[in-house]
Amino acid sequence: MGLPKLQIALDNDVLSEALYSITQVGDEVDVIEAGTILCLAEGMEAVRCLRALYPDKIILADTKCADAGGTVAKNCALAGANWMTVICCATIPTMKAALKEVQDLQVELYGDWTFAEAETWMEAGLVQVVYHQSRDALFAGETWSEVDLNKIRQLVAMGFKVSVTGGLEMETLRLFAGIDVYAFIAGRGIRDVANPRQAAREFKAEIKRIWG
Amino acid sequence: MGLPKLQIALDNDVLSEALYSITQVGDEVDVIEAGTILCLAEGMEAVRCLRALYPDKIILADTKCADAGGTVAKNCALAGANWMTVICCATIPTMKAALKEVQDLQVELYGDWTFAEAETWMEAGLVQVVYHQSRDALFAGETWSEVDLNKIRQLVAMGFKVSVTGGLEMETLRLFAGIDVYAFIAGRGIRDVANPRQAAREFKAEIKRIWG
Repeated sequence: MGLPKLQIALDNDVLSEALYSITQVGDEVDVIEAGTILCLAEGMEAVRCLRALYPDKIILADTKCADAGGTVAKNCALAGANWMTVICCATIPTMKAALKEVQDLQVELYGDWTFAEAETWMEAGLVQVVYHQSRDALFAGETWSEVDLNKIRQLVAMGFKVSVTGGLEMETLRLFAGIDVYAFIAGRGIRDVANPRQAAREFKAEIKRIWG
Repeated sequence: MGLPKLQIALDNDVLSEALYSITQVGDEVDVIEAGTILCLAEGMEAVRCLRALYPDKIILADTKCADAGGTVAKNCALAGANWMTVICCATIPTMKAALKEVQDLQVELYGDWTFAEAETWMEAGLVQVVYHQSRDALFAGETWSEVDLNKIRQLVAMGFKVSVTGGLEMETLRLFAGIDVYAFIAGRGIRDVANPRQAAREFKAEIKRIWG
């Protein structure tokens, strides 16, 4: 079992605020995510700026692409993104078209996706999935459950690299102990605390304590 | 049965090209769509520019939003969009949060959505859906079938305003005769012909011939 990566999600509305956030924690994290909110607000200029500041980091464009996979992925790659996301209800041709243009692709799991669909993603060459607690579902009071953890275990058993996200805080990480998580994706749990750099280091230390 | 609207989808990679396209046909169409490709490439500046050029038109931001509905919708509305899209596999809280911020919301139908899910959208106050032939599916050779048309009829019967899109050309419109289509969404079928303005007028004339 490898050490899970730490991914920071920049879900800012404004590019300058995302850049301020990332200068606090960019050196501490493994993957820098231009969040959907940021991509839609500022376009690929956000990815270009992150690439300019962090030439050696993995940069993910969280487009949650549903169609026109080839074009969207090409634009992400041209802007400097290594990885991109597609939404789980995209068609297989959309996923395949996107996968050709970027180094790797993550399928974002929302709604009533099925393991039978997951098999088709695997057959199409996709190996990364993101298991999500919807931000809005979290606002509505839902949280991580044994049902979630079992689904994650099953995806890992199928051979997927599974990243998890949604309201993650340092205290949440231990819920996933014993599961081969590929990356933990944190946003406001790191960005919106008094000392984001220290928070990122504490996340990394907790990951090392549990999985190291 | 009302006259279906004509919506132009601007799926350009570059803002200036979208603006060039819209100056050709903006006066002829009912709804101007900042396509997903354009929103992700150029951000909400694309919507701001379209609003600046067409202060009185309905402008749609085709974000295909899957999460953080409230934030994404607020950003779209601030930029000047009237309508926004959400993806069908978004959660109901995401859809409800988005609906609060914009004048209207369209659910984009991709993948294995069900009529049972459509009932939950209706209960959540969503009345617009977009029936899609995936761009990538079209590239893979799929086209409009009686199965598609029957699903559209069923959605209309449920009370939805149904817009249709995907590889629409003027010759395709007659396939939908007798169906209460809310809007036809055309992209390259209008933008990428020798005379886009004439193409838009011919689309409108054909709509009037069939539904008028």
